[in-house]
Amino acid sequence: MSTFGDLFRVHTYGESHCKSVGCIIDGCPPGLKLTEEDIQVQLSRRRPGQSDLTTARSEFDTVHLQSGTEHNVTLGTPIGLLVHNKDQRPHDYAETDLYPRPSHADYTYLAKYGIKASSGGGRASARETIGRVAAGAIAEKYLKEAAGVEIVAFVASVGKVELPFAQGEDEVLGKEFVELLRTTTREQVDKELTRCPHRETSDKIADAIRSAKSREDSLGGTIICVIRNCPLGLGEPAFDKLEAVLAHAMLSIPSTKAFEIGSGFRGTQFLGSQHNDPFVDGVDARTGQKRLRTSTNWSGGSQGGISNGEDVYFRVGFKPPATISQQQNTAKYDGSTGVLETKGRHDPCVLPRAIPIVETMAALVIMDMFLKQNARSSAASLLEPVDHLPPSMILPGKNKVVETQLVEDKVVQE
Amino acid sequence: MSTFGDLFRVHTYGESHCKSVGCIIDGCPPGLKLTEEDIQVQLSRRRPGQSDLTTARSEFDTVHLQSGTEHNVTLGTPIGLLVHNKDQRPHDYAETDLYPRPSHADYTYLAKYGIKASSGGGRASARETIGRVAAGAIAEKYLKEAAGVEIVAFVASVGKVELPFAQGEDEVLGKEFVELLRTTTREQVDKELTRCPHRETSDKIADAIRSAKSREDSLGGTIICVIRNCPLGLGEPAFDKLEAVLAHAMLSIPSTKAFEIGSGFRGTQFLGSQHNDPFVDGVDARTGQKRLRTSTNWSGGSQGGISNGEDVYFRVGFKPPATISQQQNTAKYDGSTGVLETKGRHDPCVLPRAIPIVETMAALVIMDMFLKQNARSSAASLLEPVDHLPPSMILPGKNKVVETQLVEDKVVQE
Amino acid sequence: MSTFGDLFRVHTYGESHCKSVGCIIDGCPPGLKLTEEDIQVQLSRRRPGQSDLTTARSEFDTVHLQSGTEHNVTLGTPIGLLVHNKDQRPHDYAETDLYPRPSHADYTYLAKYGIKASSGGGRASARETIGRVAAGAIAEKYLKEAAGVEIVAFVASVGKVELPFAQGEDEVLGKEFVELLRTTTREQVDKELTRCPHRETSDKIADAIRSAKSREDSLGGTIICVIRNCPLGLGEPAFDKLEAVLAHAMLSIPSTKAFEIGSGFRGTQFLGSQHNDPFVDGVDARTGQKRLRTSTNWSGGSQGGISNGEDVYFRVGFKPPATISQQQNTAKYDGSTGVLETKGRHDPCVLPRAIPIVETMAALVIMDMFLKQNARSSAASLLEPVDHLPPSMILPGKNKVVETQLVEDKVVQE
Amino acid sequence: MSTFGDLFRVHTYGESHCKSVGCIIDGCPPGLKLTEEDIQVQLSRRRPGQSDLTTARSEFDTVHLQSGTEHNVTLGTPIGLLVHNKDQRPHDYAETDLYPRPSHADYTYLAKYGIKASSGGGRASARETIGRVAAGAIAEKYLKEAAGVEIVAFVASVGKVELPFAQGEDEVLGKEFVELLRTTTREQVDKELTRCPHRETSDKIADAIRSAKSREDSLGGTIICVIRNCPLGLGEPAFDKLEAVLAHAMLSIPSTKAFEIGSGFRGTQFLGSQHNDPFVDGVDARTGQKRLRTSTNWSGGSQGGISNGEDVYFRVGFKPPATISQQQNTAKYDGSTGVLETKGRHDPCVLPRAIPIVETMAALVIMDMFLKQNARSSAASLLEPVDHLPPSMILPGKNKVVETQLVEDKVVQE
Repeated sequence: MSTFGDLFRVHTYGESHCKSVGCIIDGCPPGLKLTEEDIQVQLSRRRPGQSDLTTARSEFDTVHLQSGTEHNVTLGTPIGLLVHNKDQRPHDYAETDLYPRPSHADYTYLAKYGIKASSGGGRASARETIGRVAAGAIAEKYLKEAAGVEIVAFVASVGKVELPFAQGEDEVLGKEFVELLRTTTREQVDKELTRCPHRETSDKIADAIRSAKSREDSLGGTIICVIRNCPLGLGEPAFDKLEAVLAHAMLSIPSTKAFEIGSGFRGTQFLGSQHNDPFVDGVDARTGQKRLRTSTNWSGGSQGGISNGEDVYFRVGFKPPATISQQQNTAKYDGSTGVLETKGRHDPCVLPRAIPIVETMAALVIMDMFLKQNARSSAASLLEPVDHLPPSMILPGKNKVVETQLVEDKVVQE
Repeated sequence: MSTFGDLFRVHTYGESHCKSVGCIIDGCPPGLKLTEEDIQVQLSRRRPGQSDLTTARSEFDTVHLQSGTEHNVTLGTPIGLLVHNKDQRPHDYAETDLYPRPSHADYTYLAKYGIKASSGGGRASARETIGRVAAGAIAEKYLKEAAGVEIVAFVASVGKVELPFAQGEDEVLGKEFVELLRTTTREQVDKELTRCPHRETSDKIADAIRSAKSREDSLGGTIICVIRNCPLGLGEPAFDKLEAVLAHAMLSIPSTKAFEIGSGFRGTQFLGSQHNDPFVDGVDARTGQKRLRTSTNWSGGSQGGISNGEDVYFRVGFKPPATISQQQNTAKYDGSTGVLETKGRHDPCVLPRAIPIVETMAALVIMDMFLKQNARSSAASLLEPVDHLPPSMILPGKNKVVETQLVEDKVVQE
Repeated sequence: MSTFGDLFRVHTYGESHCKSVGCIIDGCPPGLKLTEEDIQVQLSRRRPGQSDLTTARSEFDTVHLQSGTEHNVTLGTPIGLLVHNKDQRPHDYAETDLYPRPSHADYTYLAKYGIKASSGGGRASARETIGRVAAGAIAEKYLKEAAGVEIVAFVASVGKVELPFAQGEDEVLGKEFVELLRTTTREQVDKELTRCPHRETSDKIADAIRSAKSREDSLGGTIICVIRNCPLGLGEPAFDKLEAVLAHAMLSIPSTKAFEIGSGFRGTQFLGSQHNDPFVDGVDARTGQKRLRTSTNWSGGSQGGISNGEDVYFRVGFKPPATISQQQNTAKYDGSTGVLETKGRHDPCVLPRAIPIVETMAALVIMDMFLKQNARSSAASLLEPVDHLPPSMILPGKNKVVETQLVEDKVVQE
Repeated sequence: MSTFGDLFRVHTYGESHCKSVGCIIDGCPPGLKLTEEDIQVQLSRRRPGQSDLTTARSEFDTVHLQSGTEHNVTLGTPIGLLVHNKDQRPHDYAETDLYPRPSHADYTYLAKYGIKASSGGGRASARETIGRVAAGAIAEKYLKEAAGVEIVAFVASVGKVELPFAQGEDEVLGKEFVELLRTTTREQVDKELTRCPHRETSDKIADAIRSAKSREDSLGGTIICVIRNCPLGLGEPAFDKLEAVLAHAMLSIPSTKAFEIGSGFRGTQFLGSQHNDPFVDGVDARTGQKRLRTSTNWSGGSQGGISNGEDVYFRVGFKPPATISQQQNTAKYDGSTGVLETKGRHDPCVLPRAIPIVETMAALVIMDMFLKQNARSSAASLLEPVDHLPPSMILPGKNKVVETQLVEDKVVQE
């Protein structure tokens, strides 16, 4: 369905050529200052036509708030918003309509619904993401104001050009990369047309995209996203672990095919003794209060599916866009073979424009989990403390515990 | 929460040392023949102690059906089932309880709940997966009988030892690997203790595991799962795309950190013209009826988030198990540093035992989507056909369409 | 939250004075013919200013479809729609703002959200129902075309004036009333300004409303709704029984306080032997096929929470509107007592305008249950028949059963 | 489905004659002291065989906790529990199996599922309520400890015998009844076998039940439930209003047909000026803090679907049990007419035993809403206060407001 989230919930609507695309955001906390400009920022980073590296089509995509705020403050009631489509006509029938576009959704939409929008893209169009970007922009704003959460995504590879992730076989991830993760800001990201904040890599990526464009071809790549000051304790065992819901969110973005958190696939090649993140005494990055930290962060900020207060970072893989202008040998709907040639201004690479989509989807995940965890912890805080538990069950120093003798060791069942 | 699925829904309960672990399966179609043996098969493939490559602990994990069937036929009502825990005692306090285990869930469970099971593992224990494996075994049985669906998972890599995925830089995936995907059976998988069906790789993996075990260390790896005869049209735009929900399911399995469908991260390095799957005239693998197929399947059976009738295949990355017996320098809960030594029989590598977990989680995803798609298509089938649509909106030959003139081309909005 | 339904799902947004009110309908079956006029019919029956019995304010409430259809056919994708608000200004501060209006939502909205719309009504305003009426109008259209379902609501009482429900103490419900239930059409309902199709009662109701209006007072009442040709087998045990979800739907309508299905509260006064509905041989009202019917229908078409194919009928109680123009002694927010006088054109009785709201909410309930039941029955139909069940478990004649000896009687556990 | 609640969620399983009935409770706050005895209390009040007024069958229904607690404290993880069925055999085929029992669920279960439990009752049996009573007992315990919530239900009528609700036509509800609502305790309720705490009415009810029993007939009736110290601000607009979800919960209890909150159907007969609850200066019953109260409470503690801090009270109607021992003329499954005689020990009146079911379902509703409201209010509390809002939007005295001129009056849109 077109709904994401439980307590902070977005519902989206809209095809590529209908009157408008938009969404309803339900569950936004009341009392948040919110203007259309707050939302527009991420929509503008998402829109086509920002540079010669993306499609030449220029759409402004202005957001119109319909409800849920007054005097620029949220009321706690559903926030409706929409962005008008520029081209709202149903399409005439063209030669290209005889073909399902390879690796596009034409064939599967018809198989699923028995009918599809005449424009082809329909709900599979990238315009569908406008609603979620708008919703996520609101979540971001809340998270920043209420909990200091910072979410930054950047392009990590395009085609075979990639950031220097690690130097050798024995290094889980390299120092240069870890530093990028720790420090990169949106401002740094937006300085590069490619939205890859590593200048050297960025230049190579720009070349690769221009080269693909000139050959009427397309390029995929990967985006890395880091969530700083992610509150401790987010993620709902057993099925809605932090990484599980992040993966769900990311792979719901059009063209995505892969997700990994922390050391990801690369981490599967290391030994437990290399990969474990030892605990060290430390302070919370936001509050400055003393608490346990980890000296490495190959876990990507999540252990047992619950955030541990370290930076959450993950990588998302985007396939090369299916729509390319060069000729393709493929079958028509009727089974006969032909040559499909899709004219038009297609995006040779969606990565730069996908940055705000990844960030805002991450914000939707964190926001919903934050509300859930607050519901739990505020409920637990209303109970009288218990004073008869053994020290293996509670945080040392936080509760009165029963005096107990240490035993040699305990049996582990599984 | 501990619920997965909407129409075919499993709820699980149970910690590592409570009385039992189990689940309720709601929404199972009535009239399915079902015995405890049908469920036991996958539970037994999951249990510890199956070979010297996994933990030496031996648990039988016998399933006990509580409700929802009579005369070995499902009633359509909730199916309750449980597996008794062998060791049900709360734990005494041990030296190791002074430490949160590195990269384990001890610290995050305490942060989240303010309390944790004395046994440590608690709900983060692998025993939590028993309920989902049991539920998924029922889903598998239905899918096989009703739609011929076959789900086979196998170990694709352990540590740095991996299957021959591809031969060169220009090959998305190699022929040998594609053949493995196409043909591997559960019987072939179970012939190998490693559950890697490629003998040569399997032998190397067995060596690697035994070596890690002898050094009191652990190894991660990857599992590939293929879903054959996956019905066309599964996956719910926009947020619940097939790959999004599969990723959610897989990353809810303990120790997983990565997911990719089809060509995955590797596919992001190729050009659109290389990566697109051209359509060809073909026949449905199950029904033998004529329909469009694709000549390659880099998409992994999903286009636009909807299954296209080709094999769905994906890969899941498991980190090396966090619990290792060798000494680790790490901080105690109180911040002081020490040396943690976790005695006991730990799994040096969970991959072989995780095979049925991956398969059954995949079955839960497909089952729920199958019911949703059936709800839609059966509802649509009750409507009178429409006869005024242009041919760009419907399957050629399936409906009467309005006569129309071809135009040169259409404008693409995004 | 502002979401209703699982498979056919409506999300609404909008306050009384924001830019627009509207909704997203997700899960509408593809291939349904749908125009704005189809939706407008019920919106126009709902709008204020239709007669001197309701408020004098006149709003046209024109619906604008945004997405989900093309060439007037549904695509299966989310349907966005909206109705512009005429008066979109935030309100100036008035004397009346010092008071929470008695029995209105001012006080509780502030308690819940800490903030409320300046206009007072905000999301508690009757304008909130526009979205659901629009969504329900689509559900109605589908249900009529696909399954012949007819939903008719009418005013059954206003103040102390009521339809002749029964003649004596020993009659569950009277013949005249049962006949009204069986035959009343929307056309008959709309002939009366009161929307009470019993002329004699209607005249008395009109008098009562005019009298209340002249005294600046308000009147409550009850609405009865009947669902004809409700498909057999709708309703989901255990928590989502047909009557449970209908009650939920009805008591989500502003100003409602009571719900009863079938004989309702009156039925609680009769003996089981009087109240049971005996089965008789019969034919299905829609298909004409032979099947069991009941000779009475005190159950209101639902047994065990599942529809039995008889007419589903229920009654909804509306309190007198809280907003009245006459002076009220009541406290201000600061606790001091005063006299509140709310000027303006208030509805003395909302019953006539609430008819389409009741009908469309009923449609939303039936639609969602219909899709769920179709998901189940289509899934069950794909299984091989079982042939070993005793006759007490299956419909006689439908399946092959095991030969069995009758026993004297069986033990009932509870 | 068999799930109730979102954040505090219960899933139930079990038929009348399977191995056990039980449930999983997900979302219980961690740190709550909980023993099996805490749950057993309400289960024992629910079980059959408590007096000569209910069925003679005696079942002890001992609860067995499976998970989610350790050292009698909740862990925050799912709580599994079960009650063994005494009689777990499938049934032999009896003469009575030729008939669907009138007004029972035999016919509708077969229509829905195509198969039913041989025992007849199956999932429609009253044993299904065991799981929810157990879950609700946990919710009750939390609510009492964390928020002082008290829930008391009592029998208000059986057949035509009823409490003195009001003295005359002009009285919404009488003083004696209002006093009963205000003061009745569970101890007082349990002193009467009928669980009607008004001695005079109780005696008449006992007579009526014995009389019906002797005639092999059955009696319905109504139960009133009051929730004291219900926290302010519970209930989620627009669809999940407090009364909507309470109605849903109550009408999911077997044999219920009617629900009303506050003055209910009777209140629809009064004028707005009679029915409105004026605000008065007062103190919170629990905290003793000054806040607005209402001088009457015809609303039943809910305005705009949100609790206002007054007692929440509602009434539920139960039809006479369908299963009676006397002969009934009715059709067999094959359409032929006969005489059904259902031997066995049937409950002539379920009202006394239904008291704990009503109370615990109410607790489930309040618990879930309490968690949701806490999620919202704790989220809002993390934001900086806004200081530019007009006084019509916020609680006077609570925030800094903009100076403003009073205007004469504002326009009401709807």
